[in-house]
Amino acid sequence: MSNHIVTSYDTDLQNLRRSIAEMGGIAEKMMDEAATALVRRDSALAQAVIAADQRLDALQREIEERSILLIARRQPMAIDLRETISAIRVSGDLERIGDLAKNIAKRAVAISDQVQPQKIVVGVQHMSELVQEQLKDVLDAYATQNVVAAHDVWERDGSIDALYTSLFRELLTYMMEDPRNISFCTHLLFCAKNVERIGDHTTNIAETIHYLATGETLPTDRPKNDRSSQTTVEPPAPQNPAA
Amino acid sequence: MSNHIVTSYDTDLQNLRRSIAEMGGIAEKMMDEAATALVRRDSALAQAVIAADQRLDALQREIEERSILLIARRQPMAIDLRETISAIRVSGDLERIGDLAKNIAKRAVAISDQVQPQKIVVGVQHMSELVQEQLKDVLDAYATQNVVAAHDVWERDGSIDALYTSLFRELLTYMMEDPRNISFCTHLLFCAKNVERIGDHTTNIAETIHYLATGETLPTDRPKNDRSSQTTVEPPAPQNPAA
Repeated sequence: MSNHIVTSYDTDLQNLRRSIAEMGGIAEKMMDEAATALVRRDSALAQAVIAADQRLDALQREIEERSILLIARRQPMAIDLRETISAIRVSGDLERIGDLAKNIAKRAVAISDQVQPQKIVVGVQHMSELVQEQLKDVLDAYATQNVVAAHDVWERDGSIDALYTSLFRELLTYMMEDPRNISFCTHLLFCAKNVERIGDHTTNIAETIHYLATGETLPTDRPKNDRSSQTTVEPPAPQNPAA
Repeated sequence: MSNHIVTSYDTDLQNLRRSIAEMGGIAEKMMDEAATALVRRDSALAQAVIAADQRLDALQREIEERSILLIARRQPMAIDLRETISAIRVSGDLERIGDLAKNIAKRAVAISDQVQPQKIVVGVQHMSELVQEQLKDVLDAYATQNVVAAHDVWERDGSIDALYTSLFRELLTYMMEDPRNISFCTHLLFCAKNVERIGDHTTNIAETIHYLATGETLPTDRPKNDRSSQTTVEPPAPQNPAA
């Protein structure tokens, strides 16, 4: 009987893992397609990203519900309890990643008919590719419970924050150069911010993997290199000093 | 014995409620002070907001931990289980509200030495006041388990989204009028976006109150009036058409 219960709990955990993996796959695809829609000005692809978010929301609710019931019914201890709590946390992060990818897709639609110098979009795309790699690596680390790989993701996030800060400066400079750049550069700024926040959620997942494996919580004061909220850019000297 | 356990569970729940109330008080204060720091260009006040966030993070971790242990140890049913799950959710939303207020405070520091037309900041302040009211009302509704008041907050969020969209347009127009406005208007745009997201978290709390009282989940497709991600603004006709 006791053996039966143990086996059944394992099945429940395996099902949770499977649902998390499904969420991870959807989130990765949404992020990839949102970035592609932005670069190619592909409104149809962007709409597909927007539509995909519903499934992610539904899965997150389902995982949360199943996890809580599992805790209440089975009173798991130690590693089993941690795995169930981790499922709740990771599904929450993946749901937020989906929201952010959806927001990028909405902005891709908004600026799809605007003439944009391609080199500006390329910066956002590059940043997005780095974060997609982070997301892939952290999902692999979660599936294999690889703490070393999770730490690696956690530490790499600093370089994404630094990239975001430099992109922030660059976009502000383009806006100052020509007021016709302002509308779409503003949307690109928000897209870049969304990508940076997706990066933060991948580090949250890395922290959850650390907790899952060790039972301990990483310090909350991860060194951040996002200086954009402290950054201002001066416009070039006015062409008409009398103005 | 059974009576003892019941009483003790009530005590645990009361302690959770008290911690949530403490979080709510800190989040309200942070939001109020972040907006004041922005309007008055008060860097010292902004630094106080930034420092306050740590306590909120610590409380959130503590509430989550205590709630999960409560579920595992006591196997609560029905309303008691829902109240414990609600504590986890609400503390998560309050922690995010603190992060957003902290980000506003950081931007207040960044632009404190810039000359800003006061009327631009006033729009963000007005929006912030509306959201502070929402936050206060939803925390009261949570403390008194008042579902009607929670629904009221949930429905009012649409007007905040609409206000944000109009502020978004206005800020873009200021940026187009004068490149010297671009840096601080960009920070104000992010501040306004943060306020709008705080509004979203108050509606999440309203949804949790509905779930707590009824055991049912509100539909995920709340009508949204935030059209900013679909909004672009055209610059005025160029003064020098040859440029």
